[in-house]
Amino acid sequence: VLTLRPSLPRVDPARAERAAILLDRALGGSKVLTARDLCEPFARDESEAIGESPDIVVHAASADDIQTTLRIANEAGVPVTPRAGGSGRTGGAVPVCAGIVLATAAMTSIKEIDKTDLLVVAEPGVILSDLQDAVEREGLFFPPDPSSATYCCLGGNVAANAGGPRAFKYGSVNRYVLGLEVTLMDGTRLQTGRRTMKGVTGYDLTSLMVGSEGTLGVISEVTLRLVPKPPAVGTLLALFDHVRAAGAAVRDIVARGLVPRCLEILDATTLEAVRRSGVPIDTRAGAMLLIEVDGEPATCEVELERVGEACSTSGAIDVLVAQDAAQRDRLWKARKEMSRAVRALTKNKLSEDVVVPRSRLVDLLDQVDRISESSGVKMLSYGHAGDGNLHVNFLWNDPDELPRVDLAIERLFREVVAMRGTLSGEHGIGVLKAPYLPLEQSADLIAVQRKIKATLDPAGLLNPGKIFPVLGHRDC
Amino acid sequence: VLTLRPSLPRVDPARAERAAILLDRALGGSKVLTARDLCEPFARDESEAIGESPDIVVHAASADDIQTTLRIANEAGVPVTPRAGGSGRTGGAVPVCAGIVLATAAMTSIKEIDKTDLLVVAEPGVILSDLQDAVEREGLFFPPDPSSATYCCLGGNVAANAGGPRAFKYGSVNRYVLGLEVTLMDGTRLQTGRRTMKGVTGYDLTSLMVGSEGTLGVISEVTLRLVPKPPAVGTLLALFDHVRAAGAAVRDIVARGLVPRCLEILDATTLEAVRRSGVPIDTRAGAMLLIEVDGEPATCEVELERVGEACSTSGAIDVLVAQDAAQRDRLWKARKEMSRAVRALTKNKLSEDVVVPRSRLVDLLDQVDRISESSGVKMLSYGHAGDGNLHVNFLWNDPDELPRVDLAIERLFREVVAMRGTLSGEHGIGVLKAPYLPLEQSADLIAVQRKIKATLDPAGLLNPGKIFPVLGHRDC
Repeated sequence: VLTLRPSLPRVDPARAERAAILLDRALGGSKVLTARDLCEPFARDESEAIGESPDIVVHAASADDIQTTLRIANEAGVPVTPRAGGSGRTGGAVPVCAGIVLATAAMTSIKEIDKTDLLVVAEPGVILSDLQDAVEREGLFFPPDPSSATYCCLGGNVAANAGGPRAFKYGSVNRYVLGLEVTLMDGTRLQTGRRTMKGVTGYDLTSLMVGSEGTLGVISEVTLRLVPKPPAVGTLLALFDHVRAAGAAVRDIVARGLVPRCLEILDATTLEAVRRSGVPIDTRAGAMLLIEVDGEPATCEVELERVGEACSTSGAIDVLVAQDAAQRDRLWKARKEMSRAVRALTKNKLSEDVVVPRSRLVDLLDQVDRISESSGVKMLSYGHAGDGNLHVNFLWNDPDELPRVDLAIERLFREVVAMRGTLSGEHGIGVLKAPYLPLEQSADLIAVQRKIKATLDPAGLLNPGKIFPVLGHRDC
Repeated sequence: VLTLRPSLPRVDPARAERAAILLDRALGGSKVLTARDLCEPFARDESEAIGESPDIVVHAASADDIQTTLRIANEAGVPVTPRAGGSGRTGGAVPVCAGIVLATAAMTSIKEIDKTDLLVVAEPGVILSDLQDAVEREGLFFPPDPSSATYCCLGGNVAANAGGPRAFKYGSVNRYVLGLEVTLMDGTRLQTGRRTMKGVTGYDLTSLMVGSEGTLGVISEVTLRLVPKPPAVGTLLALFDHVRAAGAAVRDIVARGLVPRCLEILDATTLEAVRRSGVPIDTRAGAMLLIEVDGEPATCEVELERVGEACSTSGAIDVLVAQDAAQRDRLWKARKEMSRAVRALTKNKLSEDVVVPRSRLVDLLDQVDRISESSGVKMLSYGHAGDGNLHVNFLWNDPDELPRVDLAIERLFREVVAMRGTLSGEHGIGVLKAPYLPLEQSADLIAVQRKIKATLDPAGLLNPGKIFPVLGHRDC
């Protein structure tokens, strides 16, 4: 059941106090905050989850600070919630039993960009768009591009295995992480992975860390593989009377062997919200595809033409191709305005990021309409059609509506799993989706993950209450 | 220290006998072999490692057979060595304490190819080239292409995270595995991962299994992501007087933002071996690059031209571009003949597959020459220059030379690690490289991997003696 205020028994204040004294002594007062008003903001992240205000916030400046903090916390038995940008959408950075928030946002160094080895080495507090800009200045490209790029941090991108619209061609963050410097709860600092493009020495602990939402270790350095910056980008917008036609176009694009870097879909309700916010969109349109290709200029042109053909064949009302950067920005306007436009519709919004096999995308959109009708909850969808990754938004004004929202979410998840899909494509599980994990994963699969967690963090002190459904006290 | 005959204490014969009776009863006699002459061939794989003849060989026909075998073995305390194609190069499929070989080569079904979802579902015994052919007939493409493609099996490709020459553009097998059906030593059968392109629910157990060399679980089904088959391929061969010039060309190609799918290098000694086997190669040539691009025909042409420019600028003696399929085959001839040609040079050959950052490739080639000179061991190198992944071959005739070979290997590994490289790019650790793992990985990193292994297989019965250096009895 959806709980916006998840909690575990609060850490014993005496332990927290002891940890605060030890941390203050080891790190110096400027890095260790305990004042209520300074700690309070760390009770929340960008999600709807409402956490507990931490007893202590540590602003780490180095891997050593992270190691010291974890060692002290482990010895004192005080839970630690790691946090980089705090831009997560499922409460992964929200403390559920107070304790320590270990913030790495101050670790903002881009240590190295190598143009021959095509890699970048950076700290977890680097803002993603800063990293993108820095490597693009060198003619390189880091493809993952979640919509939070201007304020999310690399550490969180890695911990959550972030995605974004370019994943259809380029994949999510996990495809780019070569190696990590990561500290376990007991203070063991590991260098996982490598600096080389290939490597099969031992278990892939790097991938085990990526997407583990800060429950297995705290990242202090990331080595990312880069690709050459594509010399050209082509953008196309297609309008359809119904999502069914847009879905057919997606299928046709894939059948033609085309791999656009973005293949975004907006449904009728989303388009209506965007219209209301002042962006003019053909009123006949009940669905939009926004498609972007990249590569050599000549290839882009050929590919855009074929994408346009696929849209027209599938019954597009209108197909617009950007001729320059200004037009490109105009085509992206509806997509960029969307989040704000949707937010304006109601007081409360919860966005799920389910994924189904690409072939079931239209079925999923149909189901969303049906669930909205039967539950009476306003719902709308947009997302990454190429990946079958839909952001289904649940909108409500009154807290009384929450039980209905909860039922609608659960019904959505059940339908998604029945379509052989998954609960989350890029947001992760955090606390908000933890209760639903058993809908997708078997008891055995969850048990094995808990065992691995317990191996690295026997006392369950690192980011407790995340990913796995809470069974009892301090079960994490 | 290199040991070609690794061994652990042989399993208690009474236990093995008991397991054989239980397996025979549960699976039927045709799947359970105990006759010495039928078991003997399973003591070896394609590597130089010499294993113990197993007491029992089980030919599994299904996931149920795998589960039954592991349950019985676990209860009887008999070690199990999983095996698919047995084409590994480091002894990963070689039993080191007898017991059971669990063969999955008979599980050869390609269950499903989906052209919209761009995926294939197949069993572990499918020969890789059969899989490649099947998906290519549908206009799809599975890029990993190790040189053993015509006889290696998918299960081993996944267990070893196989690579091959196309990895520069397309990555290794891990980039394509969406999900696995895998059974742990205690018989727990898991469905890891998913059928969708994206997914961040829980830990990435799929990636943990990929490359774990059969030490964590036995694979019964693989779901692979595919890409559209590239419509065109272009091939270019460039000859250089020295590897230094070839290395400069590789650097220039990368600097131009080009991403050929293959970027293969052959050193002077390798070329000489190929010449001796009857393939005519310009005698001035001391290095060869074989380069392949793919994509839209127009793009291929442009890219080949730029690749050719880079080679000429770096001082190529000759640059040949294939005009048709027959010419393409001719250009590949030297590369394909190479393995046989090298094998003809001496009685014994051991091929390491080290990787360094691409920028250190020429330094590595220099080091190989120096090590060969100082150790007196004949060495030659070829491999995947784009990835910095070099196959360094150690050649010898007489068993007396082994200590010198061992020293040369260790020196190579130390140099590779000093260049921030890795011991293995595609072969894995198996038994042959296990003694050297601590050269690359810290004691803490190895300890964490051992802990994870012990969590899933407390008695150390699944593929014992692999990856980790053996400390004492049955330490695996």
